[in-house]
Amino acid sequence: MTTNNTTAAVGFAEKNQARFVEELKALLRIPSVSTLPEHVGDVRRAAEFVAAELKRIGMENVRLIETSTDEEMIADAAGQTRVVPPRLGHPLVYADWLHAEGKPTVLCYGHYDVQPPDPLEEWKTPPFEPTERDGNIYARGAVDDKGQMWMHVKALESLMAAGGGKLPVNVRVIVEGEEEVGGEGIAAFVREHGEKLKADVALVSDTEMFAPELPTLCVGLRGMIYTEIEARGARTDLHSGMYGGAAPNPFVALAQVIAKLKDEDGKILIPGFYDKVEKPTDAELKAWKALSFDEEHYRETEVGSIALTGEPGYSVLERTWARPTLDVHGMPGGFTGAGAKTVIPAKAVAKVSMRLVPDMTPAESFMQYKAYVESICPKGIEVEVRLIHAGDAIVVSTDNEYVRAATAAMHEVFGKETVFVRGGGSIPIVGDFERELKIPTVMMGFGLPDDNLHAPNEKFHLANFHRGIESIVRFFARLGA
Amino acid sequence: MTTNNTTAAVGFAEKNQARFVEELKALLRIPSVSTLPEHVGDVRRAAEFVAAELKRIGMENVRLIETSTDEEMIADAAGQTRVVPPRLGHPLVYADWLHAEGKPTVLCYGHYDVQPPDPLEEWKTPPFEPTERDGNIYARGAVDDKGQMWMHVKALESLMAAGGGKLPVNVRVIVEGEEEVGGEGIAAFVREHGEKLKADVALVSDTEMFAPELPTLCVGLRGMIYTEIEARGARTDLHSGMYGGAAPNPFVALAQVIAKLKDEDGKILIPGFYDKVEKPTDAELKAWKALSFDEEHYRETEVGSIALTGEPGYSVLERTWARPTLDVHGMPGGFTGAGAKTVIPAKAVAKVSMRLVPDMTPAESFMQYKAYVESICPKGIEVEVRLIHAGDAIVVSTDNEYVRAATAAMHEVFGKETVFVRGGGSIPIVGDFERELKIPTVMMGFGLPDDNLHAPNEKFHLANFHRGIESIVRFFARLGA
Repeated sequence: MTTNNTTAAVGFAEKNQARFVEELKALLRIPSVSTLPEHVGDVRRAAEFVAAELKRIGMENVRLIETSTDEEMIADAAGQTRVVPPRLGHPLVYADWLHAEGKPTVLCYGHYDVQPPDPLEEWKTPPFEPTERDGNIYARGAVDDKGQMWMHVKALESLMAAGGGKLPVNVRVIVEGEEEVGGEGIAAFVREHGEKLKADVALVSDTEMFAPELPTLCVGLRGMIYTEIEARGARTDLHSGMYGGAAPNPFVALAQVIAKLKDEDGKILIPGFYDKVEKPTDAELKAWKALSFDEEHYRETEVGSIALTGEPGYSVLERTWARPTLDVHGMPGGFTGAGAKTVIPAKAVAKVSMRLVPDMTPAESFMQYKAYVESICPKGIEVEVRLIHAGDAIVVSTDNEYVRAATAAMHEVFGKETVFVRGGGSIPIVGDFERELKIPTVMMGFGLPDDNLHAPNEKFHLANFHRGIESIVRFFARLGA
Repeated sequence: MTTNNTTAAVGFAEKNQARFVEELKALLRIPSVSTLPEHVGDVRRAAEFVAAELKRIGMENVRLIETSTDEEMIADAAGQTRVVPPRLGHPLVYADWLHAEGKPTVLCYGHYDVQPPDPLEEWKTPPFEPTERDGNIYARGAVDDKGQMWMHVKALESLMAAGGGKLPVNVRVIVEGEEEVGGEGIAAFVREHGEKLKADVALVSDTEMFAPELPTLCVGLRGMIYTEIEARGARTDLHSGMYGGAAPNPFVALAQVIAKLKDEDGKILIPGFYDKVEKPTDAELKAWKALSFDEEHYRETEVGSIALTGEPGYSVLERTWARPTLDVHGMPGGFTGAGAKTVIPAKAVAKVSMRLVPDMTPAESFMQYKAYVESICPKGIEVEVRLIHAGDAIVVSTDNEYVRAATAAMHEVFGKETVFVRGGGSIPIVGDFERELKIPTVMMGFGLPDDNLHAPNEKFHLANFHRGIESIVRFFARLGA
């Protein structure tokens, strides 16, 4: 592709900014909430909307791929095994254009489903009536991920228009509709039909910039193990008046176990847990230190607690990006209604997860955790430790041509060096691409830290929408040069 | 009353056993769960059922007395005063028959409300479909306290029938509908209208026999404070991927607090908590030692855990009757569904109660507890410690004519000497009777240790239901002799 073509594509995108935003609004009006059965038709409508546009701009082999999940056996909160029947999922949208001979193939990933909008009363304007205010577009899904996915589509349209129906690289597009409900459908598809997504690199725009005006690539994600500890004491629920002082209490036991899992400074006490933790490189640490990050501002505006917690001696960024953590999410069992019920429950459960960092592995970490919990099980109590799900931690190398092309492209747009950050959460599909397709992922996202992801008043900064399109145009152009 | 009348009353009860049980079943079918707002109509229905029967058997002045709680001022964790508005309670059922001139007046107390039936799936037959199996009647409230309260009503009916509409003693009946939610309504009524319950002795049948065939009077009860600790961290629920390692976790905090409330041997760690604990008398300790009690059998058949817990150096009977204890009943908040949700909840609650023994007082014990919890509140967390309800511990004298009449009556029925025990639970009204009405209480109960009080498959041994009626008939006859 010639530089002229790139300039033409950027010009096309610039000239069509208003239309691109109007199209995005139309997509945002579709309440494609994947977790709510009453929106199943809306979710499909969003898939069809995306497919139609991919077809219109000249992509080929555009189709919806139906997904389904296998029958599953799960243990419920009461410890009973339940069968989750196989069920139809939300469709994947697939498209490709594979005529750039000798050029690399990019797999563009995004998702068209959104989180539920509750609590509705906290939205300033309705979640599915996209509204522009102060240079932002407010709507559920604005940044996560409809707006960012639409950048891919619009970058492809601009390149097609400038290239006379041709792209500078080969492209496959896969857009899922279950990201907010676990992404089982696409995971199964990648596992079973990986050859249909054959590519050299994946492009994911579902992350954020570290700060406005600061081009950012996400190059690491924490892994996780999500577990349940079930503590059983008496055979049946007992009255605390009659048996208090003799019968073991599973909640007290779980409290004693949890208090031994993590000390009051936030250090995890599981023997061997930190053995494989790899320190970020000096270059990374230096880069993170250079980032403008005000812990007090973060505490006040993002967390809202009276103090932050976590391991002493590590910055918030290190603690949330590069250190393993342990959290308790809920403790089902016993009496949870209003008022007083004096029961010593026969059993109680703690839902405990740990975030993992390279080079920890879910299998080893879970074994260490399980053995430790069993070893500290209080008197009179039997524990069962269950793994609910697991995901690998990921660090992508910054030393490859794709990352170099991405940073160069963003430098042209923002006039600044790209910062490399990590994310504290997991984007499981990135692990699937690495494991199943053996390809690296470029996580080039254009959200902002205050975009209210998963919360009321989600927004996308429109300048970033347009800069994102230009960055992707230039990224593709460089890969095809 | 003549011996002939007593024999006739006992005969009447015997002849009508089947009807008595059918009536009890009708009462047990009413799900009068006082703690659940959706059952407020059922609770009233149960009150009306009891009132109608008292009227039918010839009791006088039968009426429902509405209860309400006063406006209350409480101090929250931040030291701010909050107003708890006055609210309507569940009604008291009152009846009397006061024409036995020169004879003592007995105040019969019982309650028609029941505990919630959860967990429903553990009931072999539904909790509100009373079912007979192996000589027992299974239903929520079978023994606590509908079945035992019904013994009073049926003893009165039998005496009325035998005496031609006359009772051998004066009787007042007061049946409450809030025993399982703290009994505030009756406590206020006793405090404010004590003269309307003027009596010489109270009869309470809400306790159990030490062993089958062993007539038992309960002469001591533990008191209690039932509390909630609410722990608040972040302003809203947060994602554990993005914020794990920086945001405080209220469940972890509660676990740390609970682990410091009680050590692994069961010793409560609240400063000053044991200061007022009075040792049982040597005579009591000697009598308890003489009781046939096999801790291993108790562990195996009643508790069913792999080991018993509690303070070393005290027998199970001492630990459950004469030592304070601390239990956790439930920990609402966060995610309790099946599967994985990676939320760091903004807040979580622990429902914690303590059993008290003479001479501890609820007010002082709660203050010690609250101050201690606040002092050990983990970093980043704010706690609010709330008192849900409280009751005094009591010990009643065994040296009075009412206790002698009761033991003699039971000797006639069971052919055995009565044993004097304490109960680990609380019956707050006994303290109110002692303090406000200045009368002793005879706690003559006919439950059995394995009756599953407050648990699934609650039952009442039908032989004890009938022997209870006969015992009460003979007790009244002796008091009126």
